[in-house]
Amino acid sequence: MSVVVVGSVALDSIKTPFGERSDVLGGSATYFSYAASFFTDVKVVGVVGKDFPARHLQLLKKRGIDLAGIQTADGDTFRWSGYYEKDLNEAKTLDTRLNVFQTFKPVLPETYRDADAVFLANIDPDLQLEVLTQVRRPKLVAADTMNLWIATKKNRLTELLKRVDLMVLNEGEARQLTGEAGLVKAGRRIQAMGPDYVVIKKGEHGALLFCRKNVYPSPAYPLEDVFDPTGAGDTFAGGFIGYLNKMGNRLTDDVLHRALFHGTVMASFTVEDFSLDRLKKVKPADLLARFRALTRAVALKS
Amino acid sequence: MSVVVVGSVALDSIKTPFGERSDVLGGSATYFSYAASFFTDVKVVGVVGKDFPARHLQLLKKRGIDLAGIQTADGDTFRWSGYYEKDLNEAKTLDTRLNVFQTFKPVLPETYRDADAVFLANIDPDLQLEVLTQVRRPKLVAADTMNLWIATKKNRLTELLKRVDLMVLNEGEARQLTGEAGLVKAGRRIQAMGPDYVVIKKGEHGALLFCRKNVYPSPAYPLEDVFDPTGAGDTFAGGFIGYLNKMGNRLTDDVLHRALFHGTVMASFTVEDFSLDRLKKVKPADLLARFRALTRAVALKS
Repeated sequence: MSVVVVGSVALDSIKTPFGERSDVLGGSATYFSYAASFFTDVKVVGVVGKDFPARHLQLLKKRGIDLAGIQTADGDTFRWSGYYEKDLNEAKTLDTRLNVFQTFKPVLPETYRDADAVFLANIDPDLQLEVLTQVRRPKLVAADTMNLWIATKKNRLTELLKRVDLMVLNEGEARQLTGEAGLVKAGRRIQAMGPDYVVIKKGEHGALLFCRKNVYPSPAYPLEDVFDPTGAGDTFAGGFIGYLNKMGNRLTDDVLHRALFHGTVMASFTVEDFSLDRLKKVKPADLLARFRALTRAVALKS
Repeated sequence: MSVVVVGSVALDSIKTPFGERSDVLGGSATYFSYAASFFTDVKVVGVVGKDFPARHLQLLKKRGIDLAGIQTADGDTFRWSGYYEKDLNEAKTLDTRLNVFQTFKPVLPETYRDADAVFLANIDPDLQLEVLTQVRRPKLVAADTMNLWIATKKNRLTELLKRVDLMVLNEGEARQLTGEAGLVKAGRRIQAMGPDYVVIKKGEHGALLFCRKNVYPSPAYPLEDVFDPTGAGDTFAGGFIGYLNKMGNRLTDDVLHRALFHGTVMASFTVEDFSLDRLKKVKPADLLARFRALTRAVALKS
């Protein structure tokens, strides 16, 4: 079992009410792959610049993540800088420098093409579609998107949605994509656009999983200290899809529901420190402990 | 077992993206008592004006709700008018006319004073404290509050909190009261101010229940059509506290957790129509069906 992820590998500069950091490891493919590596084999497709610190790639390699699909291009690595205000709900962007990402064309190494799952992080739908031409017979195609593509490339995104089994996006994107204020309606509308399964991420308020018939709401893992929410959504997707992949991409309600919990637990670590600083200290026993705690906290004793 | 509720009985004029109504039955004591009446005996303390339609009192009476503590004063009934924008998250007040509520002094009939539970809805903390002098030995004292009292009567509210077992308030109020942006920290801070148990209501995002040791997050009941959220919080409190009262005010984690689900289910009906229009069609079997559906939707299959 293996999952290919295509997305950004970035250097983030972030300010929260609790501190700030410059040029720390970030990017959707980074968070996703690190989280998914707890469950399955992960192969990354992305690009970094000549300035990208080798120790960041080492960190991923140590988790057994396959980096054969990471190109190193002339120029600087993609950089994002932003800040959060007191409620931490919304990232405000200060600056986005695409740098080497601007001309990025994903190329899947031959060893990637038989992967049985693909996660298309929130890159340009043209690139997401391009990746789908390079994989042979994935059993599971999952994707994310963002406000920019909904606003500027709705047609291509609509095309993509028809080819996606599982769409993972946040509540603002779900509303923007469908024009529905209510999230249950929005999720059902997105399903009607193609994906059999949809997850709407709500940050500190948890997530909604839409299966064919049932809707499963899940709260976030309750934390006293949330430090920096950057990467939480991609970490969630990594835990979610990593677990699905481990389970043979068997998309039953029960497996998807468990995946929702694994994603939630995984994201709860990311927000406890900047970058991957908390996540990289996580051991399988920590995941299990929070998975059990969350299970107990939401289910009534029978 | 019986619960005394003191709060507003009102005529609301409401506009939502889906329609509008003038002078419909509303008020915290109304929603609370109707919801709680599915679980236990309810005794209301409140005031209405000479203009208050008799049919509204009939509706409550038909549910077996004791109205001996409702005063009819010279003047008009308390009126609130407001509207909701597309996301329905926040009520915007257009006008509040206290009318007979301005000079309201709660007086508990002798038959109310031995009630074993009291719910002090979001009225002036001076009146909430006054009610506590009139009950003899309640086993459970629960209260709500609102932004106005946090801003203008913090000292009296602090006094009240020391005498409350269970505080029920919304997320904005919890943040305002504690200065904490994070809700888990806010809940713990409120517990430190007195109440052993706290519920933070998050509207469409559910609620957080704080027990002595554990925190229980619960999503809202997933609905496709939310029509008017007015009264949802008080309905939630009615289901929550009505159930606790039915269970002998036994404040174990398990009973409180079940109460959280009953409150959530009850509120899910209120938001499906204006005023009590949906709630008044609810049958015990409807409650049970949603309780079971919610239980299934949040708990993993074991």
